[in-house]
Amino acid sequence: MSYRSPLQDMQFVLYDVLQAHRQWQQIPDFSAQLDRDTADAMLAEAARITEERIAPLNRSGDEEGAQWNNGVVTTPAGFVDAYRVWRDGGFTALTGNPDFGGLGMPKALSVLVEEMLYAANSSFALYPALSVGACMSIDAHATDELKQRFLPKLYAGEWTGSMCLTEAHSGSDLGLIRTKAVPNGDGTYAISGTKIFITGGEHDLSDNIIHLVLAKLPDAPAGSRGISLFLVPKIWVNADGSLEHHNGVNCGSIEHKMGIKASATCVLNFDGARGYLVGEENKGLACMFTMMNCERLSIGIQGTGCADRSYQNAVAYARERLQGRDVNGGDKSRAADPIIVHPDVRRMLLNIRATTEAGRALAVYLGMQLDLAKHAESAEQRARADALVALLTPVAKAFFTDLGLDSTVLGQQVFGGHGYIREWGQEQLVRDARIAQIYEGTNGIQAMDLIQRKVFANRGSSIDLFLAEVNDCAKQIGSAALKPFAADLLQRSAQLQDLTHTLLDRGAATPAELGAAACDYLHVLGYVTYAYLWLRMMVVAEQQKGNPFAATKLKTGTYYFHRILPRVDSLIAAIRAGASDIMALSAEEF
Amino acid sequence: MSYRSPLQDMQFVLYDVLQAHRQWQQIPDFSAQLDRDTADAMLAEAARITEERIAPLNRSGDEEGAQWNNGVVTTPAGFVDAYRVWRDGGFTALTGNPDFGGLGMPKALSVLVEEMLYAANSSFALYPALSVGACMSIDAHATDELKQRFLPKLYAGEWTGSMCLTEAHSGSDLGLIRTKAVPNGDGTYAISGTKIFITGGEHDLSDNIIHLVLAKLPDAPAGSRGISLFLVPKIWVNADGSLEHHNGVNCGSIEHKMGIKASATCVLNFDGARGYLVGEENKGLACMFTMMNCERLSIGIQGTGCADRSYQNAVAYARERLQGRDVNGGDKSRAADPIIVHPDVRRMLLNIRATTEAGRALAVYLGMQLDLAKHAESAEQRARADALVALLTPVAKAFFTDLGLDSTVLGQQVFGGHGYIREWGQEQLVRDARIAQIYEGTNGIQAMDLIQRKVFANRGSSIDLFLAEVNDCAKQIGSAALKPFAADLLQRSAQLQDLTHTLLDRGAATPAELGAAACDYLHVLGYVTYAYLWLRMMVVAEQQKGNPFAATKLKTGTYYFHRILPRVDSLIAAIRAGASDIMALSAEEF
Repeated sequence: MSYRSPLQDMQFVLYDVLQAHRQWQQIPDFSAQLDRDTADAMLAEAARITEERIAPLNRSGDEEGAQWNNGVVTTPAGFVDAYRVWRDGGFTALTGNPDFGGLGMPKALSVLVEEMLYAANSSFALYPALSVGACMSIDAHATDELKQRFLPKLYAGEWTGSMCLTEAHSGSDLGLIRTKAVPNGDGTYAISGTKIFITGGEHDLSDNIIHLVLAKLPDAPAGSRGISLFLVPKIWVNADGSLEHHNGVNCGSIEHKMGIKASATCVLNFDGARGYLVGEENKGLACMFTMMNCERLSIGIQGTGCADRSYQNAVAYARERLQGRDVNGGDKSRAADPIIVHPDVRRMLLNIRATTEAGRALAVYLGMQLDLAKHAESAEQRARADALVALLTPVAKAFFTDLGLDSTVLGQQVFGGHGYIREWGQEQLVRDARIAQIYEGTNGIQAMDLIQRKVFANRGSSIDLFLAEVNDCAKQIGSAALKPFAADLLQRSAQLQDLTHTLLDRGAATPAELGAAACDYLHVLGYVTYAYLWLRMMVVAEQQKGNPFAATKLKTGTYYFHRILPRVDSLIAAIRAGASDIMALSAEEF
Repeated sequence: MSYRSPLQDMQFVLYDVLQAHRQWQQIPDFSAQLDRDTADAMLAEAARITEERIAPLNRSGDEEGAQWNNGVVTTPAGFVDAYRVWRDGGFTALTGNPDFGGLGMPKALSVLVEEMLYAANSSFALYPALSVGACMSIDAHATDELKQRFLPKLYAGEWTGSMCLTEAHSGSDLGLIRTKAVPNGDGTYAISGTKIFITGGEHDLSDNIIHLVLAKLPDAPAGSRGISLFLVPKIWVNADGSLEHHNGVNCGSIEHKMGIKASATCVLNFDGARGYLVGEENKGLACMFTMMNCERLSIGIQGTGCADRSYQNAVAYARERLQGRDVNGGDKSRAADPIIVHPDVRRMLLNIRATTEAGRALAVYLGMQLDLAKHAESAEQRARADALVALLTPVAKAFFTDLGLDSTVLGQQVFGGHGYIREWGQEQLVRDARIAQIYEGTNGIQAMDLIQRKVFANRGSSIDLFLAEVNDCAKQIGSAALKPFAADLLQRSAQLQDLTHTLLDRGAATPAELGAAACDYLHVLGYVTYAYLWLRMMVVAEQQKGNPFAATKLKTGTYYFHRILPRVDSLIAAIRAGASDIMALSAEEF
């Protein structure tokens, strides 16, 4: 089924609600080159390409899959041409550093482009997505010479990047990696080891692939403090930019997976491959974390993108499919009414819609914070944005993708039996969305990151900061119609604050309390954050009340507050039950 | 990964908790032939065959899939032999009528055999499962002559059955079917039309396939009151039992699906195929509903079976996989600890386990009620059991399968990236379990059946009956250790009763209130029912306290009450928000 980019919804969030264009005016890096017209032109072009060129390859790409043959990986028919169109549209350079050929656009704009790309074709989206991460790491940590040699080609999309972290015995726990890097004596290193699950590690879309590889120097300390980051090109690049020869990196196989089948997930064998150190020795994980927030947000957006696609398909089907009779009478001239009249079908659709629209708003909100953290003039503003980014990025990654799976399952359910059949595409969205809960740090890892590093380690200061913003917003609501929602939000915010303090105390006494609470806590924060963003959307929608678009927003937000937000009650009750029941069983008892 | 039948858990529920063997002694149809040893022998044999012969074909069956070639359907390698072993073990006759060659075993035993079969191989399980439904319809409604001609071969497994209901434009709403049945004048009918989604409609496991087909007579009333049921053999069977010729039924294609790929989901073209009327004219839906409760329970069990398989795999992986450090110290001689030490991994495992074990108990409980409804001597007992079966069957079907999907997703998540790769089998369980929420009446249809027909239509009398049983049990708890759980259950039961009365009032005023509440209401009843069964399991476990098996049961039950049961709070809050937010949007606004 075809894809329509939700441009009106995107512009509503970007400009009307979050006023990103005002932020752009205040940031010198953006104000010179970027205004609303430019941003709109980028969004319109991204919409055109994703709708016309990339979405049509989604089903066929799934059926055909990426193919491995003796080390060579071929993407499905049409991918090479579509990638060229995407690249020529400037999208591989979108957020890149202008000093090296990037367009320097804000992340707040990029998140919307990313959503379109994931919604259109998640497998396709991953090829450029991983390049963005590689570019950010190079831009932040490599020498100017390396930047000059690699970034312009990467931004141009002539080359792509990959992130080589995982090994067979080392995924969530990267301290266990065994890949070695031995100095060659000429400033380069010889990298040897086997990496798995390398997205876009080999393919036919670009002339070269620049691998960013975690490896250990010979005398490195044990564990995660002894990991360094290396830049290892598939084809060696001389100082003058000329390509020399294959560089001891081989793709041993690609995985057979549940979904994202057109994305090549590679086993990469490094056999003394030459590479450059990026950043300092043994600081590889820190270098990697530079781009982690951006990448995690991006992967989160895969969840909302797939959810929106599933919603679009499900609504179209629910309007056409005639089954059963409207309890309010219906149209007797037909043998049955369209299933969109049935309350339970509407419930499924609204569950998707209310969470997807809030997720989109949070993505833009976080994109704006990422922009502030990098570009704001005042150090105070940067520090505040940094704290919010650190706090909310694991939420975005895990919550978007958990609700993304729920949403694709609901969108499939609307189709009944047809949802289970491959030709309709709804089951593919479930399979494609599922990976986003797993890769880029499983959602369990995100939840531990949140509760341990972003809440417990700073004694709740970041969450206090965020909830103060939430409470300020709620307290300022003047409209009588919106006051009940503001009151609801204030109450939820207070519940969350109280819960946080309970966990800070418990976690200090019993470390397992944090792990036992982590996933549910992340969801509580997610639901409260969505309520905050819904309130902000509703405030603007109320001001535009005559407009049918705004009226629908108010209805959807109302649904969110009444039918979805109460989920926090059960989550809080489960968390308050504590860790003891979880830890009571011995490993053998399971 | 290999499958181990959970025989000890099954026997605990069957005998210790629900005391099915005592019920068998009180029912003349069972008491003569069935004792605990006989039942145990059947369970052990089912365990052996599923573990050794059927489970090993699960992965290969998924990869190979059922194949269609010019109307002929071939099952994956090994299926024909495994089916023969299953049939020769007597399992296709398990619950069949002894007058026609069935073994006459109780449903309470059968549900456990079914669980093993679905857990071992859901695709395989569907071939015999559909036969059971066809046999029940024939046994209940066909003439003795037809029973004599068809049932012995069906019970022997030499022939199989299919249920032909759905058409392209008619699934949830069967009143829309167009397949025609025209009297041939010789007591047979000519059936013409196209049926889709016919599980096991064509395959190579049996010599003949007996299709039970819904069709309309020429002068039939419109809608669901004009549907009749016909028996249409793939190969015509003469009165003397000899096979004559192919009978105008052709398999036009099989579906390409998300999962259960080794199960042939057929498009069947009936082109003047000869058939017999089963039951009365225009009473076809009622005839179909005879076996619906058994079939729906069976499909529900697919959910718990897949969940248990996923749990077994996930526990094995969590014990082996070393990542990260135990927050309580761990084993410093290893670079990392097994992930089963981490609270969040334990949470995922316990969520699966606590719901799967309760689901198994509910399956046996319902199986016993089905046995009473059919075989009890007193009419009062039969009526009471009938009411409980009617009330709880939609719950079992939808709740088992909703939690089944959640459980397979959690079991996949424990594997991290490896869970997304086909070779480990965890992603297949997600794909296979997903269909069970859709077929045999979508879970939305189950929820409407529950709230409309089983609650609203009788003004809550069935749920009052059930909750009285629940409350009696809770009030009788004498153990100080279990009293808090009993009190919790009583409170939940009261909440549910109160909610029910609210909905009876609201539904009378506004029909959409029922549909808006349906799915969440079903889940509330499901969680309360699981709590009831957990309390019963905990009572027995407490009596066996010295036993480590029983100690684990107590811990798992405690987890259920503390960490899962609170989910009803949010569900009730969502329901109480009412239908207005769901109905506020016009169809165009979606």
